Order: sequence, then C-alpha cells, then structure tokens
Amino acid sequence: MQKIEKKIGYKFKNKKLLNWALTHSTFASENFYERLEFLGDLILDAVVGIYIFKKYKNKDEEFLTNLKSAYVNRNYLKKISDKMEIIKFTKYKGQKPKRTDRILESIIGAIYLDGGWRNVEKFIKKFILNIELEPLKNYKNLIFNYAIKNHNVNPVYTVVKIEGLPHKRKFEVKVKIKGVKYVGRGKGNSLKEAEIKSAKDLYEKLIRKYRTI
Amino acid sequence: MQKIEKKIGYKFKNKKLLNWALTHSTFASENFYERLEFLGDLILDAVVGIYIFKKYKNKDEEFLTNLKSAYVNRNYLKKISDKMEIIKFTKYKGQKPKRTDRILESIIGAIYLDGGWRNVEKFIKKFILNIELEPLKNYKNLIFNYAIKNHNVNPVYTVVKIEGLPHKRKFEVKVKIKGVKYVGRGKGNSLKEAEIKSAKDLYEKLIRKYRTI
Repeated sequence: MQKIEKKIGYKFKNKKLLNWALTHSTFASENFYERLEFLGDLILDAVVGIYIFKKYKNKDEEFLTNLKSAYVNRNYLKKISDKMEIIKFTKYKGQKPKRTDRILESIIGAIYLDGGWRNVEKFIKKFILNIELEPLKNYKNLIFNYAIKNHNVNPVYTVVKIEGLPHKRKFEVKVKIKGVKYVGRGKGNSLKEAEIKSAKDLYEKLIRKYRTI
Repeated sequence: MQKIEKKIGYKFKNKKLLNWALTHSTFASENFYERLEFLGDLILDAVVGIYIFKKYKNKDEEFLTNLKSAYVNRNYLKKISDKMEIIKFTKYKGQKPKRTDRILESIIGAIYLDGGWRNVEKFIKKFILNIELEPLKNYKNLIFNYAIKNHNVNPVYTVVKIEGLPHKRKFEVKVKIKGVKYVGRGKGNSLKEAEIKSAKDLYEKLIRKYRTI
C-alpha cells in the first residue's frame, strides 16, 4: 500500500478506496474497480478539458477536442500506467488485465473521492499533463471530409474478418471511397478501433500520394 | 440580459461571459459559443456522472453509463433549452440554430467560469437532474450482443442513401444480421444517428417477435 502511494504521490485517508481501485472483478464479488473507472473517466476528461481550455485561449473547439483525445486516449494512459507498474499492485485472478489504462482511471476516481478536486487535479497534472502532446488526428473525420469534398460520397467501412471468441474478438475492416483507387485496412480489438485504423491507413496512403488532402 | 439571468436562476458577475455563451459563430468573428460548449459538455458530464455515481451505490458501470446518457444526450438537452426558450436570447445571423442543446452546454461552461463548480452544479441539479429518467438503451450494443450470441456474426450497417448539401446532409442506414429475416432502418442528420436509429428499429422488431432478446 505504501509503495503504491509513494508511486502515485498521494496518501489515502481511506485506504479502502485505494484497495477498491486496485481490485479487478475477477478477484472480488463486489467493490471492484469498474464502477470507480466510470467516475475516474469523467473526472479525467473534465480536468484535462478545463486545463486545455484555459491554456489555449485562441484555439477552436476542434483543436481542443483533439488535444484532449491525445491525453485521455487508452494508448497514452496505458503507457503511463505501465510505466508506473500499476499492475504489480492490482488484485486479479487468472489472466493479467491488459487494460491497465482502466486501472489508472479507477485510481483517479478513488483520489477524487478521497481527496477531492484539488488532489486529483494535482495527480493528473503531475502524471498525465506533464508532457506536451500534439492533438490527436480524428482519422474517421478526415476521411469523411475528404470523401464528401472530393467525391461527394460517404466512405464505406466493411468488416472483412471477425476472429476469436466473443470476449476477445479481433476485427478487420476495410474502408473504400467510391472513385478512389486506394483502400484502407485496419485490425483491432473492437470494431471502432479497426475502423479508426483503416481510416488512418487510407489517410496515410492519400497523404503519401497528394502530400496534403 | 436580466430576463435570461432570471430564467436560468443565476446572476453573472461577468456579463461578457453570458454574452459569449449566447453568441453563435454566424454573428461574430470571435468569442462565439462553440469553445464554451466544449467546456460545458465536460462539466455537464462530470457533474451528472458524480451525482449518479453517489446516488446509485449498487448499480454497475453499464447502468451508470446508460443513465448518464439519458441526462446528457442531445434530445433531452434540446427539450430543456427549448422549454427555457434560450433561442430568444441567442445572437445569430441567417437561419435559426437548431442545436439549442449546444447553447445550453455553452451556458453551463459560462456559469462554471463565472461562478465555479458550486454554482454550475446547482444549475444542473435544478434544470437537468430535476426529473427521474430511465437509463438510455444502447441499441447498437444490444444488437451487437444479440448478433454475436445468437448468430455468431457481426451486424452489418449499410448506408442506403445520402441526401442534401454537405453541411446539412441526411443519412439513411439499414442494419442486417446474417440469418435474421428482419432489417432495421433509420434516418438521421449524422451517420451515427442513422445507425443508432436503425439498431433501435431492428431491436423493436426483434422484441415484438420474441418479447425478450
């Protein structure tokens, strides 16, 4: 307990909250971190959003939205929680939980409940907002706008393949724009992820060809 | 100004903020409400989420997520802002802005900046959380789970029609599950909206047939 508190730089008044944040649903029949994650996700969004809103006074809402995405997307959060080795302090049974970003969010929820806005803001500034990131590109939007503007059609996403058991399915998606010879392809653990990756793939092919789209 | 302040039950220290919240981008070249809407959206999510989290101590994160959706979805917010007649106080040029839910969100952002968390929470509790709602069904998830569980396939969404000019396009989508004779159809102003409506249509057809799915 003390070790993880040192790592996250926050001392809990109520240790049960920290314990709750670190308990996976495979380990306990109640008080596992999935509910706290719901709370932490909202708090994180709000803290990051307010910070960005105040820092970038001359940027429009699209910039703000994409920069927020850079700080709250699962890949970035997963990197942070893996660097902090949060999984070492997590209680679970069976397979090691892969989505360590979710545990980080549940810790954020717990800090908020224990120490309020001021402390959770401090934590987020120290570990999440501490480096400068570029706004995340919204590839599906970029491809949509390109398709409408240049070909007056909608990009069409098609599922090419679904593999694996229901709880750990893999998706493969392709995206086509009528009149465009390039096709984007992407794989992912969710349909959404596969679609985004296919849009990114097509975007990069178009950029390689036209420099700017 | 006084009229709208009376309506929303909050007196601004900085009247410029209220003015900003009520200025559409068609009316001014800067300080229009789109940036404030970004902020208000986050604040609303956090206030509603924290409220629901604390109120429903025994509900899981799916319930919490769907109940939050019931309070923050555009249709519900639009009803509230239309009842408050916010549009009467909004500055715009040309066509009347339809998405009055966005203006409500920008007012929420402005109250937060002017009066802090305590005042914005008061506003949200008075006008948005004041009635009991049922959790919003996530129709795309319901249809996805049904398709995987019963037919081991993914539901396929296809765009049937796109109409209108780029900035006010109408989409028509159909959704099919291989092996199921019913087809869901939906129209909307965005692809996402049309997809959700088609999933809802299919869900209702399946429920009519099987009572429960």
